[in-house]
Amino acid sequence: MPEKSNERSIEHFHVDMSCDGQCEACEKFFDCDSPQKTVNYERRRIGRAKKTMAGIKHIIAVLAGKGGVGKSLVTSNLATALAIRGRTVSVLDQDFDGPCIPKMMGVLGKKLVIGKKGIIPVEGDFGIQVISTGSILKDEAVLTWFHKMRRNATEEFLSHVDYGERDYLFIDLPPGTSSDSVNIMTFVPNIAGAVVVTIPPIVSQIVARRATRLCQKAGINVFGIVENMSGYVCPECGSVEDIMQSGGGQQLAEDTGVPFLGKIPLDPKLSESSDVGKPFVAAFPDSPASRAVVTIADTIENNLGML
Amino acid sequence: MPEKSNERSIEHFHVDMSCDGQCEACEKFFDCDSPQKTVNYERRRIGRAKKTMAGIKHIIAVLAGKGGVGKSLVTSNLATALAIRGRTVSVLDQDFDGPCIPKMMGVLGKKLVIGKKGIIPVEGDFGIQVISTGSILKDEAVLTWFHKMRRNATEEFLSHVDYGERDYLFIDLPPGTSSDSVNIMTFVPNIAGAVVVTIPPIVSQIVARRATRLCQKAGINVFGIVENMSGYVCPECGSVEDIMQSGGGQQLAEDTGVPFLGKIPLDPKLSESSDVGKPFVAAFPDSPASRAVVTIADTIENNLGML
Repeated sequence: MPEKSNERSIEHFHVDMSCDGQCEACEKFFDCDSPQKTVNYERRRIGRAKKTMAGIKHIIAVLAGKGGVGKSLVTSNLATALAIRGRTVSVLDQDFDGPCIPKMMGVLGKKLVIGKKGIIPVEGDFGIQVISTGSILKDEAVLTWFHKMRRNATEEFLSHVDYGERDYLFIDLPPGTSSDSVNIMTFVPNIAGAVVVTIPPIVSQIVARRATRLCQKAGINVFGIVENMSGYVCPECGSVEDIMQSGGGQQLAEDTGVPFLGKIPLDPKLSESSDVGKPFVAAFPDSPASRAVVTIADTIENNLGML
Repeated sequence: MPEKSNERSIEHFHVDMSCDGQCEACEKFFDCDSPQKTVNYERRRIGRAKKTMAGIKHIIAVLAGKGGVGKSLVTSNLATALAIRGRTVSVLDQDFDGPCIPKMMGVLGKKLVIGKKGIIPVEGDFGIQVISTGSILKDEAVLTWFHKMRRNATEEFLSHVDYGERDYLFIDLPPGTSSDSVNIMTFVPNIAGAVVVTIPPIVSQIVARRATRLCQKAGINVFGIVENMSGYVCPECGSVEDIMQSGGGQQLAEDTGVPFLGKIPLDPKLSESSDVGKPFVAAFPDSPASRAVVTIADTIENNLGML
């Protein structure tokens, strides 16, 4: 049993928090109110990314804070739902370490190539264009990039891709609230809004709340919260079970003051359709999950004046 | 449609890969075979962390690559299963952005304090000691640390904690294969082995494979693969449904040449018991999930000569 005398509480870590003037690379970006920050920031925003992304009408970030709640599932299905109704849609898979989008959207094996105007995204069903490290890396490869490499790769994806004219670009963010999320929020000009994905358990809301707060700190509009894996209909007897409880997403929306966008139920067909690269909104358009996604897509389009 | 002429394939990113001699901070650590690396590495290994952690018999890393597959669930239940049989167990929650361990292990609200010999872990049921940023941060706080801050915080947790004499230290790693995973694998002396957690869908195995490969690159023994959320027994009619398919974990184990440790089924009680801070292995010891965890604990203890 450790000695308990001379105790004092720990309020912060003893790591160096001093400013080195490298604003665009700083993890305190959203906490800082120095005027110099704006100068450095604008230098980036009016840079190449602003030009390459000029033809995109609406940029939407999908995040969760927590991993494995279905960010990529929600991203790929929202993108597909919008493409089915005739929108031109691109998806940027910002998960460098564990990219799932190429597999889920049926473009695994297609490779990114460089054309005259930059990196050409790979194209999947319904003309959806996909940009992902999963289209560059071999399955066996392991990325162990720290912050600078991630930032450089982010800038490459933002400023050297030939996005062309698109109605939507979805950016699928990895778990966490640090390096990759902050890079996207710092360097992408004019994010139209964010979709925060969560699952029912209370323990997940602590993390999803951090993601929502990060958007609020960064001044990014949050379209709302999606509760994924919400309830399960037994295919044998039809009884509905809240395998992971229910209502956590709604509670989080109330707590953080953002809209609740809807619930997507668990369904064995969902993960099957991801595994064969066909988003369920296209494979099973009449399933409750697909109807939920279409409703969420409607809400977002209404928000953006697209409907 | 972008111009397709003058295409060439992209094999790597155009980011600087040159060596700056800062081996202990390098993301290419496991790819490098320069003798100088060993010199720098040993300087760390024989440093303070080696002293503070000297009283720990077995250090076990729990990782997945992917988020939300149940790393924290597996960690908290393995720790509890071992503590119930009389082992002294500590848990280090390495997830800075989204720490779940304090909530899951019922120590949320207890704060870390500094004693004579360093940071004193908080103590939960069965004498399990917990170290987590969740015991420092407020719920509303958002961490946006990049690599250096994370490394410094890791070193603080490793070298300034009063671990004392313990049979086991479990390290619960966040999603990804970069900053935090590499920091732990670089700075922790003598990791006894790793448990890789996955879920049934094939799309998850691509990411879990990267985590397994990272262990292999780092020369860390992999105890094996655990398949979580494997099958669901409908409480109404008893029919067993593979909500997320089945067998992905076993396939991954075969592909990567590591043992398969077992399957943990989905059960509404599991997430409920996490939400009230009582690992299910203690709350529902006779459930199939608890029996699966106990079997996994047996395998690990057999591996380590503790049984």
